[in-house]
Amino acid sequence: MALKFAVSKECGRSRARLGRLETTHGVVETPVFMPVGTQATVKTMTPHELEELGVEIILGNTYHLYLRPGSEIVAEAGGLHQFMGWRRPILTDSGGFQVFSLAPLRTISEEGVEFRSHLDGSKHFFSPEKSMAIQMDLGADIIMAFDECPPYPADRDYVKRSKELTTRWAQRCKAAHTREDQALFGIVQGGVYKDLRRESALELMDLDFPGYGIGGLSVGEPKELMYEVLDDLVPELPKDKPRYLMGVGSPDCLVEGVLRGVDMFDCVWPTRLARHGMVITRRGNLPIRNLPYARDFAPIEEGCQCYTCQNFSRAYIRHLIKANEVLGIRLTTIHNLFFLTSLMRDIRAAIAADMLPEFAREFLAGFAGEK
Amino acid sequence: MALKFAVSKECGRSRARLGRLETTHGVVETPVFMPVGTQATVKTMTPHELEELGVEIILGNTYHLYLRPGSEIVAEAGGLHQFMGWRRPILTDSGGFQVFSLAPLRTISEEGVEFRSHLDGSKHFFSPEKSMAIQMDLGADIIMAFDECPPYPADRDYVKRSKELTTRWAQRCKAAHTREDQALFGIVQGGVYKDLRRESALELMDLDFPGYGIGGLSVGEPKELMYEVLDDLVPELPKDKPRYLMGVGSPDCLVEGVLRGVDMFDCVWPTRLARHGMVITRRGNLPIRNLPYARDFAPIEEGCQCYTCQNFSRAYIRHLIKANEVLGIRLTTIHNLFFLTSLMRDIRAAIAADMLPEFAREFLAGFAGEK
Repeated sequence: MALKFAVSKECGRSRARLGRLETTHGVVETPVFMPVGTQATVKTMTPHELEELGVEIILGNTYHLYLRPGSEIVAEAGGLHQFMGWRRPILTDSGGFQVFSLAPLRTISEEGVEFRSHLDGSKHFFSPEKSMAIQMDLGADIIMAFDECPPYPADRDYVKRSKELTTRWAQRCKAAHTREDQALFGIVQGGVYKDLRRESALELMDLDFPGYGIGGLSVGEPKELMYEVLDDLVPELPKDKPRYLMGVGSPDCLVEGVLRGVDMFDCVWPTRLARHGMVITRRGNLPIRNLPYARDFAPIEEGCQCYTCQNFSRAYIRHLIKANEVLGIRLTTIHNLFFLTSLMRDIRAAIAADMLPEFAREFLAGFAGEK
Repeated sequence: MALKFAVSKECGRSRARLGRLETTHGVVETPVFMPVGTQATVKTMTPHELEELGVEIILGNTYHLYLRPGSEIVAEAGGLHQFMGWRRPILTDSGGFQVFSLAPLRTISEEGVEFRSHLDGSKHFFSPEKSMAIQMDLGADIIMAFDECPPYPADRDYVKRSKELTTRWAQRCKAAHTREDQALFGIVQGGVYKDLRRESALELMDLDFPGYGIGGLSVGEPKELMYEVLDDLVPELPKDKPRYLMGVGSPDCLVEGVLRGVDMFDCVWPTRLARHGMVITRRGNLPIRNLPYARDFAPIEEGCQCYTCQNFSRAYIRHLIKANEVLGIRLTTIHNLFFLTSLMRDIRAAIAADMLPEFAREFLAGFAGEK
């Protein structure tokens, strides 16, 4: 059995729950935020620094690793864990989202997707079987079915056909996947159409996956609409399986997602924001590269226990970012990832203490949201 | 007394010696290599990582810090140590070398140098007094006199006039410098003309500096010529004062410099090389970004105890560098700085064990040199 998942406590006053995900490379406490390591590295961070932050699982990108360095090189190294020196669990996505969002000139057919590399324009073809073969090479603990991810907005007919294709591809993924040390998750699609979401969930549950991704959200729709879809969809999903809301990672969305019964999240947002000189605080995001911080010798956030806030001032970090110094984006990345891992730890503690609704209300009232 | 220097042992079979430099912020064992932190950061590294490598002193650049963030901001932060979170000794250069090598449209007069910023083209003026004022703001433990650094090749008349100007500027620096917790070093100039070097040394020694920089070498002349200048010059310098060969840092030059009686070195070379995907090994430099390393799962150097070699393969580092991932240049920088700090530790151990000439012979025979 590649994956065990057990819910240890339910909030009762919301759909939130505490869980424990046992994988081939160790245990993950849920709800969890997974930092993204697109190209076999969570940008700017060593694996040991991630461990120090308390990160228990990271994400890798099939599309990027297939193009560079090539999944056969990762396989030769002994898999992605070995290649990048990360001993804890890894989840890889299917490549679907990247093919649809990054690669130019893609052509979708029943068989799969032809696309050109965003690096050199070369032609490639991803099918459900190919995505499984690459992900088996990479050797993550949790892998994702190859899906079509429609844009927002998209009309109902398109989304319906896309959802049906995603179900057929999920069947083919299940048939092609043979590694017993990996858990394959299905991905629920259906855009913002609640009935299509429910159909998608039921079709995938027939295939009995050990976990379910919720794809195609946070792609441009208003947050309220995303929350409504979750309100409607999550009760349809099996209680004893992990639910993974893909591509969502701003602090308010994490809190709202947990309240709606989501167990896992990932997003490039906190690390990308950091590289643009934006830091997350409990009162919202701070554009640390701006002039007002040039003579501000306070830490990013008073009381924050992260390495950055314990050792460096806003003025110093601002200087580093303005001067294009790597240490600047290292320090903002550490702070942002610490913020999110701490937030998830606080959320889990609040569920354990039967205080999640109160915690959520207070946090959301203080947090000014994403700029 | 801002600085104490004591020679604890002489090699006897060469001019090498072991020393101990006591500064306001702690002790430095010599011979020492000082990594360069141009913009208040040794590129890619945290101060704590430098400490872990055993780095005892770093260099800061007056020219860069004056332009960005501005020395008044560093002073407001409490000085460079406080601003960048580095608790150990710092040496700042005078800005002279950068004005002559980086800034466009410079005009030299008896009074000083007018130049334009390489960042925004704005006009600035450095004089000996201005350099002292900036370096007093920055608050390093050791600061350098403002000198003119002639290019190579340069004709004898030019170098002679330049050397005389440097001496007059050194007098003005000494008069302008008032911080008692800082030691001001003079800088010997004179190009590759041995008699001018000796004159420069004697003129500066009249001013009785607590240490002497040797400037204007490693600026394009053959290495053998640099060694000859050192052979001739060093015996003229006081035995009880530290000698600092400026801008020199390739492994073979460090060994050759120590043999000739140099106590201190600095260079951007090991960190810059790292950012270009080149790593230093005992057999020479390795272009790790090249294709042959794509499937090479060995460490950079077998037996190396650095964090990089203990945890990551050449193939992984090559992938990171090719993919423009920050972690790639972090790992190569760690390795290169570890290499040089270890080399200096080995050199000091060899002097202590009366084995330096043997150590040097073996090291230089194996080291293929700079590409």
